[in-house]
Amino acid sequence: MKLVPVGVSARHIHLSPEHIEQLFGKGYELQIMKDLSQPGQFAAQETVAVVGPKGRFDKVRILGPARGRTQIEISRTDAFSLGVNPPVRESGHIDGTPGLKVIGPQGEVELEMGVIIAARHIHFHTSDAEKWGIQDKQKLHVRLTGERPLTFDDVIARVSDQYALDMHIDTDEGNAAGVKTGDTAEILDGE
Amino acid sequence: MKLVPVGVSARHIHLSPEHIEQLFGKGYELQIMKDLSQPGQFAAQETVAVVGPKGRFDKVRILGPARGRTQIEISRTDAFSLGVNPPVRESGHIDGTPGLKVIGPQGEVELEMGVIIAARHIHFHTSDAEKWGIQDKQKLHVRLTGERPLTFDDVIARVSDQYALDMHIDTDEGNAAGVKTGDTAEILDGE
Repeated sequence: MKLVPVGVSARHIHLSPEHIEQLFGKGYELQIMKDLSQPGQFAAQETVAVVGPKGRFDKVRILGPARGRTQIEISRTDAFSLGVNPPVRESGHIDGTPGLKVIGPQGEVELEMGVIIAARHIHFHTSDAEKWGIQDKQKLHVRLTGERPLTFDDVIARVSDQYALDMHIDTDEGNAAGVKTGDTAEILDGE
Repeated sequence: MKLVPVGVSARHIHLSPEHIEQLFGKGYELQIMKDLSQPGQFAAQETVAVVGPKGRFDKVRILGPARGRTQIEISRTDAFSLGVNPPVRESGHIDGTPGLKVIGPQGEVELEMGVIIAARHIHFHTSDAEKWGIQDKQKLHVRLTGERPLTFDDVIARVSDQYALDMHIDTDEGNAAGVKTGDTAEILDGE
């Protein structure tokens, strides 16, 4: 069996270096609260508020380190609450996506784009992918046998020697499956 | 192909006759806003507020007609917002479930039980079930090919000559699949 740990991602934001300074002040550096499963990635101590036409969320967690472009990842449920209509996208693919207002302790930013619903995916270290016969960008069938069993039929494989094995789904998906971070999923494709 | 229309149920409440009177006044009768897919069932014009330890929702739709026991159906996402921990249950199976406070224009009710996350299910008219070789209470595999394709592996069949063919899922499930009411699902079991 090809088993993968599951990580359920709550709404969060990645900030560009410029936006960190606009929101937190010149020269500010994010503080690490907790390391994440992917090497070098962390949940920051800092949070921001995000505001849409119909609603707002306070205390949206920042994930670090800084990235080239600011990106907000929310669930479809969150999107209805905020009043925005983001597409399901792979991380980094934010052209043509809606924006939101982001508020920090030292300033605010009106994003022109950057809001996505993250496409479900699995990070594979190259050695895992080779062992299991899985290709980068392959769409996988992945079964979750939590309280509400289901099979995701389009989980994107992302393979790199910089990745650690982990499946990322959002809260709508985690709740629909009745699973939580640390549960296990089974990949049905590959060798 | 065994195709079924999908209905995505937002949070809602079914009220007992006693609770309708406590919330809306003696002798009050619910007004029909819209007929639902199941014969005789309707969305009422009236709404109530529901209040939990951590949050509240105003304007929760009442579905009629009155039932023997009051039942609130919410998503897992809603449950986190309210601060309650309901089980996934079939409709009507509310023993041992948590309660919530319900507020109407003429009074309020502190429920001792009744909050569930509805187990996904398909209503079959007896003739549909016979034609497709599906038994009452059978657990079905059902594929949804919306924006985020997935297969639910445990959809409960409910067969009656009082039912019309319709699949009911909650908003977490609808959002995880990227489908909305009126979309179509495919049953993978049966003949």
